[in-house]
Amino acid sequence: MPDLLRKGRLAPAAKDAVKFTSSALDDVKILKQIVDINKAHMLMLAEKDIVNREAAQKILKALFDTNSKIKLSPEIDDAHMAVEEQVVKAVGAEVGGNLNLAKSRNDQVSTAIRMKLRQELLCLVETLNELQKTLIQQAEQHLKTIVPGYTHLQPAQPITLAHYLVAQFDALQRSLERLEETYERVNRCPMGAGALATTSFTISRERVAELLGFSMVLENSLDAVSTRDYLLEMLADLSILAADVTRFVEDLILWSTADFGVLELPDEYAFTSSIMPQKKNPDMLEVIRARMSLVSGNYIACATTIMALPSGYNMDFQELTPKLWTSFDTSIGCLAMLSKVVAKIKVKSNHADKPVWSFMAATELANMLVRNHNIPFRTAHKIVGALVKALIDEGKTLKDATPALLSDVSKETLDQPLKVNKEEVAAATNLLNVVESHKVKGGPSPAEVARMLGKRKKEMDASKGWVSQKKNGLTKAEEMLESSVRVVLGLK
Amino acid sequence: MPDLLRKGRLAPAAKDAVKFTSSALDDVKILKQIVDINKAHMLMLAEKDIVNREAAQKILKALFDTNSKIKLSPEIDDAHMAVEEQVVKAVGAEVGGNLNLAKSRNDQVSTAIRMKLRQELLCLVETLNELQKTLIQQAEQHLKTIVPGYTHLQPAQPITLAHYLVAQFDALQRSLERLEETYERVNRCPMGAGALATTSFTISRERVAELLGFSMVLENSLDAVSTRDYLLEMLADLSILAADVTRFVEDLILWSTADFGVLELPDEYAFTSSIMPQKKNPDMLEVIRARMSLVSGNYIACATTIMALPSGYNMDFQELTPKLWTSFDTSIGCLAMLSKVVAKIKVKSNHADKPVWSFMAATELANMLVRNHNIPFRTAHKIVGALVKALIDEGKTLKDATPALLSDVSKETLDQPLKVNKEEVAAATNLLNVVESHKVKGGPSPAEVARMLGKRKKEMDASKGWVSQKKNGLTKAEEMLESSVRVVLGLK
Amino acid sequence: MPDLLRKGRLAPAAKDAVKFTSSALDDVKILKQIVDINKAHMLMLAEKDIVNREAAQKILKALFDTNSKIKLSPEIDDAHMAVEEQVVKAVGAEVGGNLNLAKSRNDQVSTAIRMKLRQELLCLVETLNELQKTLIQQAEQHLKTIVPGYTHLQPAQPITLAHYLVAQFDALQRSLERLEETYERVNRCPMGAGALATTSFTISRERVAELLGFSMVLENSLDAVSTRDYLLEMLADLSILAADVTRFVEDLILWSTADFGVLELPDEYAFTSSIMPQKKNPDMLEVIRARMSLVSGNYIACATTIMALPSGYNMDFQELTPKLWTSFDTSIGCLAMLSKVVAKIKVKSNHADKPVWSFMAATELANMLVRNHNIPFRTAHKIVGALVKALIDEGKTLKDATPALLSDVSKETLDQPLKVNKEEVAAATNLLNVVESHKVKGGPSPAEVARMLGKRKKEMDASKGWVSQKKNGLTKAEEMLESSVRVVLGLK
Amino acid sequence: MPDLLRKGRLAPAAKDAVKFTSSALDDVKILKQIVDINKAHMLMLAEKDIVNREAAQKILKALFDTNSKIKLSPEIDDAHMAVEEQVVKAVGAEVGGNLNLAKSRNDQVSTAIRMKLRQELLCLVETLNELQKTLIQQAEQHLKTIVPGYTHLQPAQPITLAHYLVAQFDALQRSLERLEETYERVNRCPMGAGALATTSFTISRERVAELLGFSMVLENSLDAVSTRDYLLEMLADLSILAADVTRFVEDLILWSTADFGVLELPDEYAFTSSIMPQKKNPDMLEVIRARMSLVSGNYIACATTIMALPSGYNMDFQELTPKLWTSFDTSIGCLAMLSKVVAKIKVKSNHADKPVWSFMAATELANMLVRNHNIPFRTAHKIVGALVKALIDEGKTLKDATPALLSDVSKETLDQPLKVNKEEVAAATNLLNVVESHKVKGGPSPAEVARMLGKRKKEMDASKGWVSQKKNGLTKAEEMLESSVRVVLGLK
Repeated sequence: MPDLLRKGRLAPAAKDAVKFTSSALDDVKILKQIVDINKAHMLMLAEKDIVNREAAQKILKALFDTNSKIKLSPEIDDAHMAVEEQVVKAVGAEVGGNLNLAKSRNDQVSTAIRMKLRQELLCLVETLNELQKTLIQQAEQHLKTIVPGYTHLQPAQPITLAHYLVAQFDALQRSLERLEETYERVNRCPMGAGALATTSFTISRERVAELLGFSMVLENSLDAVSTRDYLLEMLADLSILAADVTRFVEDLILWSTADFGVLELPDEYAFTSSIMPQKKNPDMLEVIRARMSLVSGNYIACATTIMALPSGYNMDFQELTPKLWTSFDTSIGCLAMLSKVVAKIKVKSNHADKPVWSFMAATELANMLVRNHNIPFRTAHKIVGALVKALIDEGKTLKDATPALLSDVSKETLDQPLKVNKEEVAAATNLLNVVESHKVKGGPSPAEVARMLGKRKKEMDASKGWVSQKKNGLTKAEEMLESSVRVVLGLK
Repeated sequence: MPDLLRKGRLAPAAKDAVKFTSSALDDVKILKQIVDINKAHMLMLAEKDIVNREAAQKILKALFDTNSKIKLSPEIDDAHMAVEEQVVKAVGAEVGGNLNLAKSRNDQVSTAIRMKLRQELLCLVETLNELQKTLIQQAEQHLKTIVPGYTHLQPAQPITLAHYLVAQFDALQRSLERLEETYERVNRCPMGAGALATTSFTISRERVAELLGFSMVLENSLDAVSTRDYLLEMLADLSILAADVTRFVEDLILWSTADFGVLELPDEYAFTSSIMPQKKNPDMLEVIRARMSLVSGNYIACATTIMALPSGYNMDFQELTPKLWTSFDTSIGCLAMLSKVVAKIKVKSNHADKPVWSFMAATELANMLVRNHNIPFRTAHKIVGALVKALIDEGKTLKDATPALLSDVSKETLDQPLKVNKEEVAAATNLLNVVESHKVKGGPSPAEVARMLGKRKKEMDASKGWVSQKKNGLTKAEEMLESSVRVVLGLK
Repeated sequence: MPDLLRKGRLAPAAKDAVKFTSSALDDVKILKQIVDINKAHMLMLAEKDIVNREAAQKILKALFDTNSKIKLSPEIDDAHMAVEEQVVKAVGAEVGGNLNLAKSRNDQVSTAIRMKLRQELLCLVETLNELQKTLIQQAEQHLKTIVPGYTHLQPAQPITLAHYLVAQFDALQRSLERLEETYERVNRCPMGAGALATTSFTISRERVAELLGFSMVLENSLDAVSTRDYLLEMLADLSILAADVTRFVEDLILWSTADFGVLELPDEYAFTSSIMPQKKNPDMLEVIRARMSLVSGNYIACATTIMALPSGYNMDFQELTPKLWTSFDTSIGCLAMLSKVVAKIKVKSNHADKPVWSFMAATELANMLVRNHNIPFRTAHKIVGALVKALIDEGKTLKDATPALLSDVSKETLDQPLKVNKEEVAAATNLLNVVESHKVKGGPSPAEVARMLGKRKKEMDASKGWVSQKKNGLTKAEEMLESSVRVVLGLK
Repeated sequence: MPDLLRKGRLAPAAKDAVKFTSSALDDVKILKQIVDINKAHMLMLAEKDIVNREAAQKILKALFDTNSKIKLSPEIDDAHMAVEEQVVKAVGAEVGGNLNLAKSRNDQVSTAIRMKLRQELLCLVETLNELQKTLIQQAEQHLKTIVPGYTHLQPAQPITLAHYLVAQFDALQRSLERLEETYERVNRCPMGAGALATTSFTISRERVAELLGFSMVLENSLDAVSTRDYLLEMLADLSILAADVTRFVEDLILWSTADFGVLELPDEYAFTSSIMPQKKNPDMLEVIRARMSLVSGNYIACATTIMALPSGYNMDFQELTPKLWTSFDTSIGCLAMLSKVVAKIKVKSNHADKPVWSFMAATELANMLVRNHNIPFRTAHKIVGALVKALIDEGKTLKDATPALLSDVSKETLDQPLKVNKEEVAAATNLLNVVESHKVKGGPSPAEVARMLGKRKKEMDASKGWVSQKKNGLTKAEEMLESSVRVVLGLK
């Protein structure tokens, strides 16, 4: 770079200064994108007769040949200068000196990041889809498998594993919605904004945008190089996703503890201790929990950096992009691993008999009193509450509830007896019964959950379709760019 | 509350315990919403014959009368219990005891928050619109007012104040896009999810959703009570908006310093010092900068709290909502104030003559060499760089550039003379000229900015239309609820 | 304020501008401190003959009378101006106009915050001490009460509740260390730094510092008004404390779930559900968890605001202090409530017999093989691991381990039999035995924990002593200030 | 690892599971520490006759030979298992199987991190010292170099560059205080805590602590393996330091803008633009600003992860340590680079004549009125305020102030004339005069700053002394460990 940019205004830069500020090693992520942008820009300059055809041909050929040869090292500023250096080496300074005409690193870098971001985002959507598929497959096996629904981490009401997994599906689905919306804001093209004020050459920003697969030009040129809100939005999406995923993983960790005993982790995805031979630890889930929470930290780290930066390009921006790629790598890696673990999770065979869970039928017992015996709900709530207390005090469970006990408790609490028959009590305290009676829209009854699963499969298909469509669009743009360049080069 | 919920299962709560956990004082924000939900739910129970018409009438009447009478104090749990207590007081325990049938505080509180959030969000959109309007009005006055475009906080290329303000408009516009998308995810109805598993009563969740103005039911019942991602998404929107606003404000602060001297703040929105009589401080802008950055802190505070919480309702949720309302109050307050300040900002009369700004024409001087003299851009860049250095070393500015000097520098740097005429240099170094020549799409030329302003006025109209449509929808739902209740009450 | 500061340089401020930026309502927290600073400063000016004795007397008298009369409202800038206004009203502009001589709001506000902070910090230390006392009292009751020591949330090795509570004590003790160190950095006096450059009057900064109870002058005057790192340090201390407290509370929540069943919360500090009569929810603990995590959010919110602010006073600072007071109020409130809950927690009577906990003796069983049978530890680890697996597969627990089974497993895994007698197995698998054998320094054996408790009582005494000493110092300074003022006023 | 830990309890782990959770690649940072811990532990076991001398000799020899041979790859769990595997390979399973006797990865990893942390912390202190030295050297050159003291980014009162740099020194000095205090809390030894409950073998934790250079044993064994507050404290120190450093850097960026024009960056540490030849951008400073702010983000990322984790070891901890090392690398790198830049910064030759800065004498002009003309300060403040306004309105500066103008303004504002002579005005408006008159403790007068510099040199010496003492202590411990091992091995 010193050679290319320095000779005029400034004395040579200190080597440690270049090394310190260089983004070259991080730029490997966007090198292909930078070369493509240079191609598209030069093609447009030639089409608009801003650079003459012959010079353009030479440069385009050099760009065509260049990809594999570029070496990024911290001795150069960044990938932008590396590409320019490579081209100048190939075609000489006279011709190559126009590579950067009517553009700047400021518009180029934001364009390159957006192009890479499109790919990462589509990859994340596919990984989320895969996880959703696993959730559905497990759910289909467990339409009638009772698990506790917890509130405040206390067993509250019985649901099924299928019902639980659909809830997780739906949280991921909202992340997919957000990601698709963000994609539209990412997919806008800053090229041609130059340093910040466009250029006095009569370039076509629309043409460059089209050749690079963007849906539109990011219009105002100061905004185009200055904004990083797309990056914050992207990280916010990942942060919200992270919050939902850590909640799911927290459940899995808790449910696979010896004390909760709801789930059994697969041996191959669990670890033991170097000292305690009985341990079966959920290391992977803990690692996922921690990594996803660190992704969330990246949002605030980047927001802090961007906050109150003056308009225009500031070098601080450069430090943000590595956080972005790391956040994607982590999220995609964790979600893929989570799919594998979830696919092999088993429900403990005898779990549904756990005594403390019997009390989850209490609400239904109260509902039954309302429905069959015309007792106001708040009164029924109190009677059943007192019954629960009586049973716990005697070390019993709700399975030990009898019509007689219910009547006694009612008399004591509310000064009135209660005539309930045995069958009523049995029906209301059978957990599977309870689940099956909850067939309201969105409820845990097997039929309703089966209906929901069908609907969600269609949502998954829609997501897949969306990804395909976007990928096709990008492929077509890439083909247009290559073929247009080939035309200029006379190669076809 | 002790009376309503305690008698059965638990001994009375300690008074300090109730006071400590009570959300009653914060609930004042959602009291109206809670009463409306109770109305809609009871109406549906009556329509579905789950509660008999007579009892429903009594309860609905009590709810109708209740609004003004409810007093929230930290001696009660929350607004939910306060409403129930009030109804029971009015109609007796026998009838009022069914108010909470087939619903729970868990679905009710999330529904109420979403209803309030719709209002806050619409109000924020209106405030943003107002600020955008101010930006456009100021821009129209300053299509030809030169201001420096900065990168790295160094004067880079000349733009106009109008061009700058359009960039700010566009950043806000993306926030509006995000807010409208978030609205759709907020506007989904959890009611009927109960504690987490719906209910065994055959309620209609769709009917309640319709009566409360929601666009759809939030289906899976565990998800419905458990998710708080809508809250995180909302705060993320505010946080991204905050980042953009603080950047705008930072520019205003810098540009109104004595040293930058671009803008003049209105006296009535500036402050002086208690000790230094010469000071004219941008206190308001600093306060906006700080408050908006604190809003961003609320995102991470809430994300930290939600991260890794188990599924189902957890009491931690209660602590999040006050942060949400505070964030809205702050954002709306700051944006409204910013509108007022921006409306009165003046450009310093003599600003464009500032010597250090003359160099902003350097790029255009290089472009001219490329265009008129067929010099490769990178070479032109070096020549002009050396020219700048020579001028600075002699304490001169780019206005002092002459054809002779340019030729000397060219000879020295590149060993070749350069024949440029006086008019070329004059044209290329006149800042207004430069701006007018940058007429590419999105560029700062007055004509292009005027075109952009026209387009943005239409975007503003679209936003306003969107708000109206949503408000109308909510009003209609409210009318439907009131009239349906009146029908049941025989009032009409 | 307009009257006091405006007439010269600026036109009147807009009313909404004053209201928007006013800190008056928040300043109620530091009003007394501001008055005291004014007293000390004026006293010093009189002692140094910078203001004549007569004028100083009038002003001091006015300050003496002023406290109760000052009304803070958002119509004035802040408490500094309110005090000045009040004094001017009492003694006239001629005399009162010197109240602000040789000082500024910039040094005054930071001094006042530091003075208030000293009080808050001492109050927090006392609250922490109270919680530590509760931990020790509970620990003394539970030297032999077995609870599971968890790693990865899986039962790992048996400890006692006393041992667990000492661990919590020690975490709090480190917070106390940090708080005491922070106190020393808070307790430095900025007064006399003026706006940022001291003054040309020959004031004595040492005298003012002494009268206000500071241990030293914060020397460099730019640093004195500019730094807010003391505020960040304070919030960091609270944030680290919050992390430790949330971990403690998380354990309590988990341990009091129906599934873990280790602890029983007191009825008066637990809540039930509005719909599920069986619930006994740890609402208070969840609220503490959430609030403490929000305190942690305040650190990052303030750090974000301070980050990259230019040197000197910036109005942004004003927005930080309310976060500081809120953080203290929340922390002190939560810790006080936690003390009450912890004091009443009970251990479930039958908990130690829980089958899944029996395996916690596995490490000791392996240790026994090493110690008595000269088997390498890694080999013993494998044998016991296989034993555990065999028992679990048969639905048994470690209590069902027999010498025969151990020998079988050993043969199968390592192809060698093992001669262990019944007593050895019984001793190694009795949890209380295991605990008693862990008598290494810091271990859970009752004797060792008793020793630790003794040591910690002394640490508590030292903390209390430290608080007393600091309080005495502050009281003495206050007395010196009052008596010196009285001398000047001729009152004594 | 599968071979070492798996055979008993669990089926083999999936390869991708091991790779996903492996910390081996990160562990390279603490490999030496882990080997040293194993040496110290085995030595103690031999000294206490828990392992027989012969076996201990073999193991110690293997550990002695092992360092260079250990290869860390993601196919193994972590460095702990890699060391054990290497030893077993060298001495066989019979003997090597006791390497892990009476210890665990849980105590070992926290011990290793603390040992590494000691080194990093000392290195950071040295880097801070170097920066302080640079500040002092620059300050000594600029005792009389006027720079503006800003508040609200408006020129407020004149100070000198030396005075400014001392303020920066003092902020760093407080970081040094914090770091030294944190060192004491880091330097406590968890070894012997085992998995969480110590061991039934009669080990000496004190001996291991001594051999590893710790100042004390971290007593309670659950606390010892469970706490990560030392890590949060460390990151909080770095975060507060980061805040102070970004504020310094922000000043440098602003002061070297063309508009402020206070400072000139050295060419070799500045960069130009790829398109705008006139640019001289402070890229390095911007990079430092961004990186330091990202360090601050690491605090909250880690705090979020730790918040509400249950007690005992959780795998989440593993994900935190890389953040810690990154934070140190970044901080040390940025501070070292900042030293280099600061050492070469120049003050712009003509800067002090900048017209807008003349007004910085306004406070002193008011003070003069108070001192020489017995005008109350608040009145003087108003007169000078009006004078400033009059001058600005006419496009003049404070240098244009005359006795006549002052009298006119006074008459107009306060209805009273004012007799000031020319010399008084000249003296009060000469910036160097003003600075020299501010000789109060901590003020900018050259004499006072020279005094402060002398004092700060002594503080620097004290810091250096502290580092030496700590380093000596660690070296001695290392020698004791090596020589004790050699004794057991009969090597000396």
